[in-house]
Amino acid sequence: MQAVRFDSQLHVVTNQPVPMVPKGEALLRVRQVGVCSTDIEITRGYMGFSGTLGHEFVATVEQCEDRALMGKRVVGEINCVCTSCDMCVGGLSNHCRNRTVLGIVNRDGCFAEFCVLPANNLHVLPDQVDDDMAVFVEPLAAAVQVTKQVRMDSKTFVTVVGGGRLGLLVAQVVNNLGVPVRVIGRDAAKLSLCERWQIRSRHVKDIQPRKDQDVVIDCTGSSDGLELAMQLVRPRGTLVLKSTFVPTRPLNLAPIVVDEINVIGSRCGPFAAAIQLMADRAIDVTSLISRRFKLDQAPAAIEHAQKPGVLKVLMRG
Amino acid sequence: MQAVRFDSQLHVVTNQPVPMVPKGEALLRVRQVGVCSTDIEITRGYMGFSGTLGHEFVATVEQCEDRALMGKRVVGEINCVCTSCDMCVGGLSNHCRNRTVLGIVNRDGCFAEFCVLPANNLHVLPDQVDDDMAVFVEPLAAAVQVTKQVRMDSKTFVTVVGGGRLGLLVAQVVNNLGVPVRVIGRDAAKLSLCERWQIRSRHVKDIQPRKDQDVVIDCTGSSDGLELAMQLVRPRGTLVLKSTFVPTRPLNLAPIVVDEINVIGSRCGPFAAAIQLMADRAIDVTSLISRRFKLDQAPAAIEHAQKPGVLKVLMRG
Repeated sequence: MQAVRFDSQLHVVTNQPVPMVPKGEALLRVRQVGVCSTDIEITRGYMGFSGTLGHEFVATVEQCEDRALMGKRVVGEINCVCTSCDMCVGGLSNHCRNRTVLGIVNRDGCFAEFCVLPANNLHVLPDQVDDDMAVFVEPLAAAVQVTKQVRMDSKTFVTVVGGGRLGLLVAQVVNNLGVPVRVIGRDAAKLSLCERWQIRSRHVKDIQPRKDQDVVIDCTGSSDGLELAMQLVRPRGTLVLKSTFVPTRPLNLAPIVVDEINVIGSRCGPFAAAIQLMADRAIDVTSLISRRFKLDQAPAAIEHAQKPGVLKVLMRG
Repeated sequence: MQAVRFDSQLHVVTNQPVPMVPKGEALLRVRQVGVCSTDIEITRGYMGFSGTLGHEFVATVEQCEDRALMGKRVVGEINCVCTSCDMCVGGLSNHCRNRTVLGIVNRDGCFAEFCVLPANNLHVLPDQVDDDMAVFVEPLAAAVQVTKQVRMDSKTFVTVVGGGRLGLLVAQVVNNLGVPVRVIGRDAAKLSLCERWQIRSRHVKDIQPRKDQDVVIDCTGSSDGLELAMQLVRPRGTLVLKSTFVPTRPLNLAPIVVDEINVIGSRCGPFAAAIQLMADRAIDVTSLISRRFKLDQAPAAIEHAQKPGVLKVLMRG
């Protein structure tokens, strides 16, 4: 089958064997995939991953012990867990000590004709969530996760730093809760989407940080973004770190101590909540689609996803 | 009067005027002071402070509107606040927007014959807390602060990274609550104090980090310490940042996101609780005294405080 593989270099191969299906897992025929910043980081060496890339997808179940799932249109949680380590037993299976992660840790991803995932990881999609929306379930779940970790209400002042793919999803989720939220970004075209959603936005150049925000959510994945976030959050406020990155220079972390900031790392989130938000039309994801590629154009697609002004890039086989 | 001043260089001066006493403040005749890592950082340029150094002291009230305080032996909280900004009104006066901080921010410190502080900042000492113990009230309060910010009980596994002045105080405070705690340090002589207090300790060389600690408290003030702390704390665990520092190299903060770690910055703490712990003999502070200097030997004292194996250095006029 066709697959987009990374092994210190990016290749599109056509002779990748269709993956074996371990007990308890399902073979998925991939319908469409999305390019995430993590994919881009991986092509720069992050996580030391090698194998088939990709973790945002919508697929049809091709083979599965559970007959009820056969032929269903599904999305899938990306953490594949052991169910027996201290984290799994303690209810934190997303942090399973022995986990593999689709296209990120020791498991081939979804940038291919087929991939496999445990049947327990799959969520059947309602008809209201079409294939374009479905590839956003994984990142939208990650955005929802912030609201599961941090209490926010109509009196909580929230700033999202970063007007990219993830920042715009996070801002919508927070806004949907009736929480006053503002997005700070660098790209006017991306920020213009906020206006459509009646979310306030500001260009980073127009910001005078005053350490007055209750909650700041850093979705930039950059040293500059994190430094700005530390200048925006109020003393004893909460700073959510939403994106992994490898800083290229030393960061002064003293504000965390001096202002007694609570920094909360945030990763994957609840798929069911994300699917429901989409089915309810509460979140606009399709406006984030910038361009579509064929799977065999993956190198160009990943390149395109890094260009200024570009939000979500999709691929199909 | 004599004073230890920093102004891009360290000087001992003898002609410093005795400070004026603003309304609501008290003139304090300094009895003894302690050298803190923050003083050392300031002599390296941290905070851009210039003026009289020092914030750990015990003194006698020499002049004060409140006659009940006259002649009393006191310690003093170091944050001098406006009582009217949003932080003060909101009950977070330690984070006052307009604060001065004794010997750290826009206020001459206590490495002098006299200093001034608002009368409201003063705590009269009981007889059980002698002058040697009293200089530890400020750092012990900072140690107590950790236990006010993070819930810990007999089932919480806690590691203190850093076997220095602050780490050994934090470890004792946590241990005193019946919480299982372990100290990781670099200096066998310092760690040997833990044995006396029946606190487990390990040399950093003997550690295999396994991401299994519920709470890790970083008291090292170093990039190495913070990196180790991130490898010790379990997913969804808590990492307390207790000391400010300026990293000299880029730090990989991805574990905070991937393991969804909760990082809590922690600064000054409750003086009354610290005084009570000392009066109850619950915490051994005097074993931390490494050496005594005269105030006019301040440069040598600050130099000595940076040597391996040295814990608390005290000075008297």
